[in-house]
Amino acid sequence: MGFRIPAAAIALLAAAPLAWSAVAARQASTVSLIVANGIVITVDGTRRVMNPGSVAINGTEIVAVDTPAAISARYRSADTIDATGKVVMPGLINTHTHAAMVMYRGLGNDLNLMDWLQKYIFPAEARTVSPEFVRVGTRLALLEMIQSGTTTFADMYYFEEEVAKVTKAAGMRGVLGQTVIEFPVPDAKTPADALVRAEAFARQFAHDELITPSIAPHSVYTLDAKTLTAVSQLAKRLMMPIQIHLAETQVEISLSQKRHQMRPVAILDNLNFWAPTTLAAHGVWINDDEIALLKRRDVGVSNNPESNMKLASGTAPVMKYRKAGVSIGIGTDGAASNNDLDMFEAMRQAAFQQKLVTMDPTAVSAAEALEMATLGGARALGRGQRLGSLEPGKLADLIIVGMSKARQQPLYDPVSQVVYASRGDDVETTIVNGRVLMRDRKVLTMDEATVLREARVAADLVRKAVQ
Amino acid sequence: MGFRIPAAAIALLAAAPLAWSAVAARQASTVSLIVANGIVITVDGTRRVMNPGSVAINGTEIVAVDTPAAISARYRSADTIDATGKVVMPGLINTHTHAAMVMYRGLGNDLNLMDWLQKYIFPAEARTVSPEFVRVGTRLALLEMIQSGTTTFADMYYFEEEVAKVTKAAGMRGVLGQTVIEFPVPDAKTPADALVRAEAFARQFAHDELITPSIAPHSVYTLDAKTLTAVSQLAKRLMMPIQIHLAETQVEISLSQKRHQMRPVAILDNLNFWAPTTLAAHGVWINDDEIALLKRRDVGVSNNPESNMKLASGTAPVMKYRKAGVSIGIGTDGAASNNDLDMFEAMRQAAFQQKLVTMDPTAVSAAEALEMATLGGARALGRGQRLGSLEPGKLADLIIVGMSKARQQPLYDPVSQVVYASRGDDVETTIVNGRVLMRDRKVLTMDEATVLREARVAADLVRKAVQ
Repeated sequence: MGFRIPAAAIALLAAAPLAWSAVAARQASTVSLIVANGIVITVDGTRRVMNPGSVAINGTEIVAVDTPAAISARYRSADTIDATGKVVMPGLINTHTHAAMVMYRGLGNDLNLMDWLQKYIFPAEARTVSPEFVRVGTRLALLEMIQSGTTTFADMYYFEEEVAKVTKAAGMRGVLGQTVIEFPVPDAKTPADALVRAEAFARQFAHDELITPSIAPHSVYTLDAKTLTAVSQLAKRLMMPIQIHLAETQVEISLSQKRHQMRPVAILDNLNFWAPTTLAAHGVWINDDEIALLKRRDVGVSNNPESNMKLASGTAPVMKYRKAGVSIGIGTDGAASNNDLDMFEAMRQAAFQQKLVTMDPTAVSAAEALEMATLGGARALGRGQRLGSLEPGKLADLIIVGMSKARQQPLYDPVSQVVYASRGDDVETTIVNGRVLMRDRKVLTMDEATVLREARVAADLVRKAVQ
Repeated sequence: MGFRIPAAAIALLAAAPLAWSAVAARQASTVSLIVANGIVITVDGTRRVMNPGSVAINGTEIVAVDTPAAISARYRSADTIDATGKVVMPGLINTHTHAAMVMYRGLGNDLNLMDWLQKYIFPAEARTVSPEFVRVGTRLALLEMIQSGTTTFADMYYFEEEVAKVTKAAGMRGVLGQTVIEFPVPDAKTPADALVRAEAFARQFAHDELITPSIAPHSVYTLDAKTLTAVSQLAKRLMMPIQIHLAETQVEISLSQKRHQMRPVAILDNLNFWAPTTLAAHGVWINDDEIALLKRRDVGVSNNPESNMKLASGTAPVMKYRKAGVSIGIGTDGAASNNDLDMFEAMRQAAFQQKLVTMDPTAVSAAEALEMATLGGARALGRGQRLGSLEPGKLADLIIVGMSKARQQPLYDPVSQVVYASRGDDVETTIVNGRVLMRDRKVLTMDEATVLREARVAADLVRKAVQ
């Protein structure tokens, strides 16, 4: 009945799977970490979403993004994080903040900008900002950022070497800008002092894996041409990124014209200000010619939708920047004006604000908002080659986002769900430079209770300062 | 050595506290629940914030709001919830939603309104809406609402008696509007059928503690004058609140003018449409004369900032409504267009959108946004006497909001922190009509796993419907 399979052939067939897996095991590389079986939003060149997909990480780098079967065939890992049913995506890049200002969150609300600054923020800063205060505030900000999936932040503040120390200790990546401003501030009596500080800071953290020292001239209306030129020269000499507030408010435009007889972009272009990497924060009151110029000068832009709405600053021409090919990322601004460091909120508002203002519901899709919050931000900070997407060879900055809350059901489109129905609190795991900073909501690189206790003490100083 | 206190006096002193507490115990009333020692945001006539404060509840009503000492002296309770360090505030009132549409959350995104409706929402509704589907979807919505601190929702959908059943079972309060629209829909082939349904629904839930039956004519551009008049007459006869989409988009204005040769408000006023309680959802494209008319007719308005931004509908003139004294609340709209039912997001966006569009950072303060999301919504739904604030005699609809997350530190101003730095997920306890629906994040009136499982099954129907 039927034909007989020779016994030898049966033996061969039975042995084959074992033999094959032995070969596979011999061929598999060992990597440090595999994030397995998630819904992988890559933000790669084809905006591929793999469902399911796995990411193999070795040391500080992503080595492969592929199907779970392909990854498990090719790699063994010391550690595996199961991401079944969860989104795996590039870590969020907050392109503009003043991290330590979380200490002024909710201090003075719903005020005109000058009332708010003069009655609350400036007195509080004058009386409270110290190296210790900056460390405490930045730690609170780092905790919030790690908990909400930010893996790189661009900062502008004082005592930036202290920001760098606590950032490095927390394992976070930062492009940290030492402020230069013309009036006396807690860490520098003069702009010249600030330039000295910036240079020392740059040398202290040169070639650091996580910290990119940067210089942060405050704005064209708070600096003269001589200082702006000196900042530019220092940045070019030390290859430091520049971060500057640019065209944030209408008041800034008129102050700039009064002081320099030019609009902000022209002032800077006239001084040949632009460094190899320059990030313009806000970029709200910018016309078409200025957008074209920023593109030619390879200047990146940070869009800050929540701050621009809450402070009634205006709306950045995001669609025009994108059409012109300007690198544009998203920022939260300081939590004093926003009022949080949650990049999920910022992504959502980046979409909502543009849709409203352009009266076009197709403006800034969920995919575009997510791209700006990741790869766009990386490019705006001059790090597009190394950060912002899940691709082999990029640095391993990624997050795992839970999708199981009632408010996230049903799940038809993961990109839409991330942008329109998720929060920072949904981030379960945050990985920077291949190191797990938070796992299953437990922050591993900071002691949460200590951070909160120190922040409470510092908050009492702030309360006294504005009494 | 020293003077001697007579033994009798010592005995008297020793007995005094006991005697006093015995008197207090005799005088203390027994109540069902005390929420003790919180940061109580009352939204009362003087917008009092008591820190600390306690709320005594007996049965379905608030009996006292006072200092913790005063409350514990005057009341004993069967149950006490400690709210130390947490905000206690009126439950949020979502004045406009289509609850069961959570089933279409994230279905089609970033599309022009007509593409979205015609390619996704209408086909999905035609093929999936049934009594069972509405029950499943509404349960998912109820879970999300209870988890995010909503205690009353105003709904417009189909099979509203099913919405009522599951709402009542979950212990939630609802003003539930049976839809009337001119084309055939899953629960009514004609507007006449829908009117019959609405009347039966009103009779079925007459005098219900939690459910207020309502009628929901879709809009002036999807109904003729005859049907609008019939709706109005039925509402007046049965004393049912009316909910209607009004002036949501510019397209609606032109369709209305084409069909009725009048703008939407004039169409309705001409028909003497207004019932004792009429809620106009959206109210975006409304001019000054129309605002004055809505005030004279005592029509309430539901502002839906997130939906209006995401769908690029426009911006309701909230500041003008408030100046004119129109009752105005906040709504999320359906989660298909928003994309969640989180009233905290809606509060924040109500503030942000107005600040942006009026270019005035003082527009819609945190306190005003919170008032609109509570008392304002109660008034817009004709329930201002019984809902929307924490005051003796009001129904016991309140929430406890945790304030301990890193992103909520420091806490300078609880109202600012609720509106600008908190989320639905921070709500720990939700109480409706004196009954605890969620305690310490555990929903007590629904089985979360069952709700989510049933929603997954229904989502598969939706996927098939739009393939």
